[in-house]
Amino acid sequence: MIHLTQPGTLFQDQYVTRASELLQKWQGEGVHSYGLIGVPLAKTSISHSGAHLAPAAFRQSLSGFTTYATESGCDLQRERIIDFGDIAMHATDVIESHKRIKDTLYELLQKNEKLFPIIIGGDHSVSYPAIAAFQQARGKTAVIQFDAHCDVRNLHDGGVTNGTPFRKLLEEKHIEGDYLYQVGIRNFVNSEAYIHYVKQAGVRMVTMEHVTAVGIQNVMQNILHEVEQKADHLYVSLDMDVLDQAYAPGCPAAAPGGMSSSVLIEALSLITRSPLFSGIDLVEVDPTVDFRSMTSKLSAYMVLSVLEKRIR
Amino acid sequence: MIHLTQPGTLFQDQYVTRASELLQKWQGEGVHSYGLIGVPLAKTSISHSGAHLAPAAFRQSLSGFTTYATESGCDLQRERIIDFGDIAMHATDVIESHKRIKDTLYELLQKNEKLFPIIIGGDHSVSYPAIAAFQQARGKTAVIQFDAHCDVRNLHDGGVTNGTPFRKLLEEKHIEGDYLYQVGIRNFVNSEAYIHYVKQAGVRMVTMEHVTAVGIQNVMQNILHEVEQKADHLYVSLDMDVLDQAYAPGCPAAAPGGMSSSVLIEALSLITRSPLFSGIDLVEVDPTVDFRSMTSKLSAYMVLSVLEKRIR
Amino acid sequence: MIHLTQPGTLFQDQYVTRASELLQKWQGEGVHSYGLIGVPLAKTSISHSGAHLAPAAFRQSLSGFTTYATESGCDLQRERIIDFGDIAMHATDVIESHKRIKDTLYELLQKNEKLFPIIIGGDHSVSYPAIAAFQQARGKTAVIQFDAHCDVRNLHDGGVTNGTPFRKLLEEKHIEGDYLYQVGIRNFVNSEAYIHYVKQAGVRMVTMEHVTAVGIQNVMQNILHEVEQKADHLYVSLDMDVLDQAYAPGCPAAAPGGMSSSVLIEALSLITRSPLFSGIDLVEVDPTVDFRSMTSKLSAYMVLSVLEKRIR
Amino acid sequence: MIHLTQPGTLFQDQYVTRASELLQKWQGEGVHSYGLIGVPLAKTSISHSGAHLAPAAFRQSLSGFTTYATESGCDLQRERIIDFGDIAMHATDVIESHKRIKDTLYELLQKNEKLFPIIIGGDHSVSYPAIAAFQQARGKTAVIQFDAHCDVRNLHDGGVTNGTPFRKLLEEKHIEGDYLYQVGIRNFVNSEAYIHYVKQAGVRMVTMEHVTAVGIQNVMQNILHEVEQKADHLYVSLDMDVLDQAYAPGCPAAAPGGMSSSVLIEALSLITRSPLFSGIDLVEVDPTVDFRSMTSKLSAYMVLSVLEKRIR
Amino acid sequence: MIHLTQPGTLFQDQYVTRASELLQKWQGEGVHSYGLIGVPLAKTSISHSGAHLAPAAFRQSLSGFTTYATESGCDLQRERIIDFGDIAMHATDVIESHKRIKDTLYELLQKNEKLFPIIIGGDHSVSYPAIAAFQQARGKTAVIQFDAHCDVRNLHDGGVTNGTPFRKLLEEKHIEGDYLYQVGIRNFVNSEAYIHYVKQAGVRMVTMEHVTAVGIQNVMQNILHEVEQKADHLYVSLDMDVLDQAYAPGCPAAAPGGMSSSVLIEALSLITRSPLFSGIDLVEVDPTVDFRSMTSKLSAYMVLSVLEKRIR
Amino acid sequence: MIHLTQPGTLFQDQYVTRASELLQKWQGEGVHSYGLIGVPLAKTSISHSGAHLAPAAFRQSLSGFTTYATESGCDLQRERIIDFGDIAMHATDVIESHKRIKDTLYELLQKNEKLFPIIIGGDHSVSYPAIAAFQQARGKTAVIQFDAHCDVRNLHDGGVTNGTPFRKLLEEKHIEGDYLYQVGIRNFVNSEAYIHYVKQAGVRMVTMEHVTAVGIQNVMQNILHEVEQKADHLYVSLDMDVLDQAYAPGCPAAAPGGMSSSVLIEALSLITRSPLFSGIDLVEVDPTVDFRSMTSKLSAYMVLSVLEKRIR
Ligand SMILES: [Ca+2]
Ligand SMILES: [Ca+2]
Ligand SMILES: [Ca+2]
Ligand SMILES: [Ca+2]
Ligand SMILES: [Ca+2]
Ligand SMILES: [Ca+2]
Ligand SMILES: [Ca+2]
Ligand SMILES: [Ca+2]
Ligand SMILES: [Ca+2]
Ligand SMILES: [Ca+2]
Ligand SMILES: [Ca+2]
Ligand SMILES: [Ca+2]
Repeated sequence: MIHLTQPGTLFQDQYVTRASELLQKWQGEGVHSYGLIGVPLAKTSISHSGAHLAPAAFRQSLSGFTTYATESGCDLQRERIIDFGDIAMHATDVIESHKRIKDTLYELLQKNEKLFPIIIGGDHSVSYPAIAAFQQARGKTAVIQFDAHCDVRNLHDGGVTNGTPFRKLLEEKHIEGDYLYQVGIRNFVNSEAYIHYVKQAGVRMVTMEHVTAVGIQNVMQNILHEVEQKADHLYVSLDMDVLDQAYAPGCPAAAPGGMSSSVLIEALSLITRSPLFSGIDLVEVDPTVDFRSMTSKLSAYMVLSVLEKRIR
Repeated sequence: MIHLTQPGTLFQDQYVTRASELLQKWQGEGVHSYGLIGVPLAKTSISHSGAHLAPAAFRQSLSGFTTYATESGCDLQRERIIDFGDIAMHATDVIESHKRIKDTLYELLQKNEKLFPIIIGGDHSVSYPAIAAFQQARGKTAVIQFDAHCDVRNLHDGGVTNGTPFRKLLEEKHIEGDYLYQVGIRNFVNSEAYIHYVKQAGVRMVTMEHVTAVGIQNVMQNILHEVEQKADHLYVSLDMDVLDQAYAPGCPAAAPGGMSSSVLIEALSLITRSPLFSGIDLVEVDPTVDFRSMTSKLSAYMVLSVLEKRIR
Repeated sequence: MIHLTQPGTLFQDQYVTRASELLQKWQGEGVHSYGLIGVPLAKTSISHSGAHLAPAAFRQSLSGFTTYATESGCDLQRERIIDFGDIAMHATDVIESHKRIKDTLYELLQKNEKLFPIIIGGDHSVSYPAIAAFQQARGKTAVIQFDAHCDVRNLHDGGVTNGTPFRKLLEEKHIEGDYLYQVGIRNFVNSEAYIHYVKQAGVRMVTMEHVTAVGIQNVMQNILHEVEQKADHLYVSLDMDVLDQAYAPGCPAAAPGGMSSSVLIEALSLITRSPLFSGIDLVEVDPTVDFRSMTSKLSAYMVLSVLEKRIR
Repeated sequence: MIHLTQPGTLFQDQYVTRASELLQKWQGEGVHSYGLIGVPLAKTSISHSGAHLAPAAFRQSLSGFTTYATESGCDLQRERIIDFGDIAMHATDVIESHKRIKDTLYELLQKNEKLFPIIIGGDHSVSYPAIAAFQQARGKTAVIQFDAHCDVRNLHDGGVTNGTPFRKLLEEKHIEGDYLYQVGIRNFVNSEAYIHYVKQAGVRMVTMEHVTAVGIQNVMQNILHEVEQKADHLYVSLDMDVLDQAYAPGCPAAAPGGMSSSVLIEALSLITRSPLFSGIDLVEVDPTVDFRSMTSKLSAYMVLSVLEKRIR
Repeated sequence: MIHLTQPGTLFQDQYVTRASELLQKWQGEGVHSYGLIGVPLAKTSISHSGAHLAPAAFRQSLSGFTTYATESGCDLQRERIIDFGDIAMHATDVIESHKRIKDTLYELLQKNEKLFPIIIGGDHSVSYPAIAAFQQARGKTAVIQFDAHCDVRNLHDGGVTNGTPFRKLLEEKHIEGDYLYQVGIRNFVNSEAYIHYVKQAGVRMVTMEHVTAVGIQNVMQNILHEVEQKADHLYVSLDMDVLDQAYAPGCPAAAPGGMSSSVLIEALSLITRSPLFSGIDLVEVDPTVDFRSMTSKLSAYMVLSVLEKRIR
Repeated sequence: MIHLTQPGTLFQDQYVTRASELLQKWQGEGVHSYGLIGVPLAKTSISHSGAHLAPAAFRQSLSGFTTYATESGCDLQRERIIDFGDIAMHATDVIESHKRIKDTLYELLQKNEKLFPIIIGGDHSVSYPAIAAFQQARGKTAVIQFDAHCDVRNLHDGGVTNGTPFRKLLEEKHIEGDYLYQVGIRNFVNSEAYIHYVKQAGVRMVTMEHVTAVGIQNVMQNILHEVEQKADHLYVSLDMDVLDQAYAPGCPAAAPGGMSSSVLIEALSLITRSPLFSGIDLVEVDPTVDFRSMTSKLSAYMVLSVLEKRIR
């Protein structure tokens, strides 16, 4: 008698659906649901980063979760996530890589009006072509950027990097200043010139100190109120380093003074109630410096929580 | 002049009592106090686990603590913990190992009516023979299980594992469903079928989302109120993965969305006030993947806190 | 324009064939060439072992090599390795797991007379059902066991473990003592009783000290000369801990005093010249304690070298 | 064309000032501002400690922060920190090393009345000569010691160590008992004899349990109220192990049950409002056991926060 | 009395000269001796590499060695190594980075005829601009490349990377095929197409298998004999992955089957006798994945050995 | 039925004697055989060292070996090693610690004429009081020091450290220069002044380069021939950093260019034939930076090999 399994399948419980089973390989068909798109780009990072390995770590982490939420009773099995694979990056030419990101996402978003993209970076530079494509394909978009950093560095000193996505988006008019909400901006990791820049540009910037002082609920309610009055779409750009280093040790720029994971989950939970919410990216997870995949697991858990709260 | 010490004794302060000194090697005598029993079994784990090394790590961690609680002024020196050693496991036969656990604990508990067992796993499978023995030796027992998972998997797919202890206890009638309280059950690590199973079985299941919403104090007061009306004994089964991965990184199933250590300590503190509380196990600590023994140290700290609160 | 790749494919050079491409998923057809069979079993290990993760690590390591040997000019692209996947292990019942190994291998070997099995453990216990099945399906087989240890422990103290495969094979008459060649047996990791046992049983045992004294070439030539006079088949059981810990740091029983990797490669090279050589297992690699997958990479390199030398 | 940079300068943004740029190498001039003084001493530690490497790690961590606080708009560029380098330690003679600490600090403090010393240990033993020198050079000083431990061990069992700084200070009358405030003293890491000792000595001791019960704000307001009525100066001795192990994993005595980093930052923030606050030491960070320099980064962040709050 | 040292100077023995003291910061003067030039470029790497951190690790490793060779009695104190610092890399534009390498080296080599460059990569891509500049500034150059890989990948699949330096050098005619000697080329890490390519191009390629068979002494004597008959200069390009993974665990492409460090040292020792030898690069050390800086220390030791053998 | 074992005893094979069982706790009796004496001192180390943890790691490593040598058939069970425990070190006063080492060893050696001491450091500084005591108790002693370093630093710069043991022994006339044999002295880790010093002092110094050139057998035969003509006793001081870093990664000063483990074992094997050989120390193993206890295991294996060769 022959007992063989797929390589690597060490144990399977017939009554358990792994969250990774939600992923369905794209066969070229039209997509009306969630779509997972990996963007394995980290050569745009200023510091040494293995964030291009995050899409693989994210998919792997999904297999550590089930599809079921115990309190609400929601089972994500009703949902489908089409896995488009990873966007093919050039080995060294980052301008070409950005172009491929924008072209690929634009075409996917335009051909699939109901596609809700879940974009897994890579470093934060990928949000520049991603948001540009989203805005161009879908129309008037507000962006909530969770981040310790403003990411509006000058382009002269290092070209296009993970320090410049929102500078590029603002300068090339892909997005107006007052359609960008930056939440969790921290002390001692930004500079006066760039805070001045975002204020001049009309960006809605909320410091971590302010979040602590007034509470995440107030912060988010005010933002969502504004967004719903002016935008057609809401896109979330989630730089995992908005979290404190104790919760997200695997970010290249992990540092103290950030959010706890429960505060960030509450923020996302409030966002899911908005009907405008139609796209998200998660960036800046470097699996090579993580501890026991904690940060990858947390990013997978965030995405599952978003899916469940949108169903409720 | 000869200056020799026991091997490995690098420094000793004469005014400090190490918590490890509370341990007294069992000489076969009757025991009327706390008894430490190691259960080095991890081959029952579904995933790769070094939890069989936890009893040694627990004892080692005790030596990093003193016996004194500063705020209350309690000194645990008045207490005695008899160290029964570890239950001898078979190298590969897990059914035989479970039998040895049950036989050994039953005989110890039956011969020592006042023995308060502190059982250090091992993985969670050890709670099946442990609770069965406890119930058989002592009578009507309510169990509070702190856990991210229900642990009621079907027995067909993998036999008796760390995913099945409460399934076995319920099916073999060692415990009625409404005598089992599961606290901290989390999203995306359980499946619909098993949540359905525990609800059908009458198990009192409290999700982590509910704990966050109403507070641990309310949760525990309700549970203790119920328990005191129906049971003769209260046993706590503490799976350390009920904690968030930031606090307990050394659990095989460490994941986000769990309790902080202070919430768990508060829960245990409330439990110690109940006169029914008469046994505990701590399971699912894998020293081989821990960081600086943080999770082992936390489990030792939990036990010391329980002892101190019971004296007060 | 859409630029998508398979998840995880970060770079591909069109003129390079990865050794992992030699693997072809088995579709149930008859197999007349090499067959890769993973045996993810480590719960039979006496010490804590993650060797069940070695088949996955082995396949992963193949992707780090190409198919081409520069000196000989052989390209393994002409070869095919059918990947049968992993034999499905029971979660806890090791006797059942051994039965599945034997049944599966027996059926595969019997139905496929020309199949050259490449069996990737798992710990060394898997060689007991593997060699039993091989001998039963193929006939009179000599075994060369590269190992620091004799692996003939008594069965009473721990049942069937990675310390007993050759004891079981001898006692159950799957193999006669003088058909077993143990090479690389080391000082201070075996005991007098067991060396006595193998000598009594007529096993040809060659110590590491002897290998160093007379040279691996002499040792192997003598063995191969004997084997070719009495056996119909030659099977190699390669416990990677025959290597010195500097070369194979990822073995559970890594220790000093062993072979260098070049000596072992020379030994295998000599074996490949024998027309009787028709099966091999590689065991005792624990990827969870390895450094930069060195030991997994070395085991993959060994297999590729064997394939190339057989072509020459 | 030549493109050369200082070794190790991988990227520089012209609009960003690194906090490490605040450091100016001391040229022997009079100093009226902050002064950084490294004290690389860890051979006084009871347990194995690499805390002598903390000054280098602290300076390195500063280079990971900027000088700008986003909420307040303060830019520390207006501040100057004179870097005096490290005090030269004897390779083995710790009494000589303590003497050098005291002599060096005394002379620096006496010659520079306005110097605000920021002393980076080393282990906690360095606070004994440091506070002695501070008190002698500046006059009537209250000390707030953040610590899990009282550090008043007897001097007989191990001589002068990181367990004795406050014992020495009290016994040699460098400081009266009621001028010493110990905050965060924890259960099971102190002993009855030493708690008795500090109470007898009139030390104001606040347990971690009390901090949790009444809140850090109340605790600090009471302390500061008392201090301002009796002392001329306020010195903070910050043992990073007052923090919970989840926030400060790199302390030799990292343990559960401690402060979160936000609670400690709030405490320091309240202290900075006191005009008496005129010196600080940070001790007990061991970079060799830290994870991703988290604890070093947190200590740098603490110092920057103190500087910013004092400007406001 | 003040005892201060430079930050980080933990101990200094007055009779010991650290090899790092040989480094003298370049002040713009003409250089007639050795020159150290860091090239911190790793974004050209196909796989994830931290090799841009190798120049800093190399300088740090020098401080772990002295200047004295015990057997020969040579003291390198008579030598001077001018440290030119690192060539400034662009954050993302690798073509620009290569241009800066070539321009910088060309200008330095041309203005300093007697400069012996010691170029510390970075990944192997840096040898393309480095050797081009060397050849252009100095004339007819033979190159001995120690490497497990040929590094002549096609340029279409990934552009200019660490897999293409010698392809570029050959195609752009910076060097003729028969002036390139590749030593240590290994099985299963190259492909047939590229071996074919180098043979067609007239490259002198020596496999690792051949080195083992005939001995490094024979190999090098033949090469040096040829070189001295046709070239004006001899440049060594040392990819540390020519070494076996047991000796150089910190190379991105660390693999089994390579040279021992003593064989490589012997090869370099023979090269130093040639009067044509006038430049070297060391590449492919990734300090972020090394163990205890072993590979960085070995590269520093190699350079010191070269210096000493040239004096003899 | 009760199944209890000693804590931590996970498996026991009745036919195997662990080498750790050779250790018998000293009960104050006279000792005529081997004696193990731990010397947990590392605060004398110039660089950061955890070598004081080596005695515990050594004993632990013994438990990973058996007592039986396969080739010779010797079983060490006939031998007895009395474990005297560790010499009690002062927490900070290293002069006092050295005094305790000397006093303790002197008294043990003098009272036990036939005691063969096996002294486990600690760093190399312990050999100063150890050899002084040996010489004083036993008489005219030749010392073979295996080491990469001469260890004769001046005493002014750092007092008595692990860089000075042989300086102290020579200066205080505990040993004449021509009774000291230093083997394996390496390039670039010593300085001219100190090589000059040892030559002036008449020390027999053999460089690693010389060992490689003439072979370890020749080196040792010459030394042993000399020793046997002038000395009454032969003592071996084995600094494990004489080994190459690939074989002994856990030494604080691990570096390239050293001996392979098989060369060192051959050297020790030759020494055991000398009837004068009557004491040994093993030093400079730091378990906190080792990989998988490789260096501790190698030191245990060395001691077992010495015992076995002496029996033969
Ligand atoms: Ca960002
Ligand atoms: Ca960020
Ligand atoms: Ca559980
Ligand atoms: Ca659980
Ligand atoms: Ca074996
Ligand atoms: Ca073995
Ligand atoms: Ca302290
Ligand atoms: Ca403390
Ligand atoms: Ca290369
Ligand atoms: Ca290479
Ligand atoms: Ca030494
Ligand atoms: Ca040494």
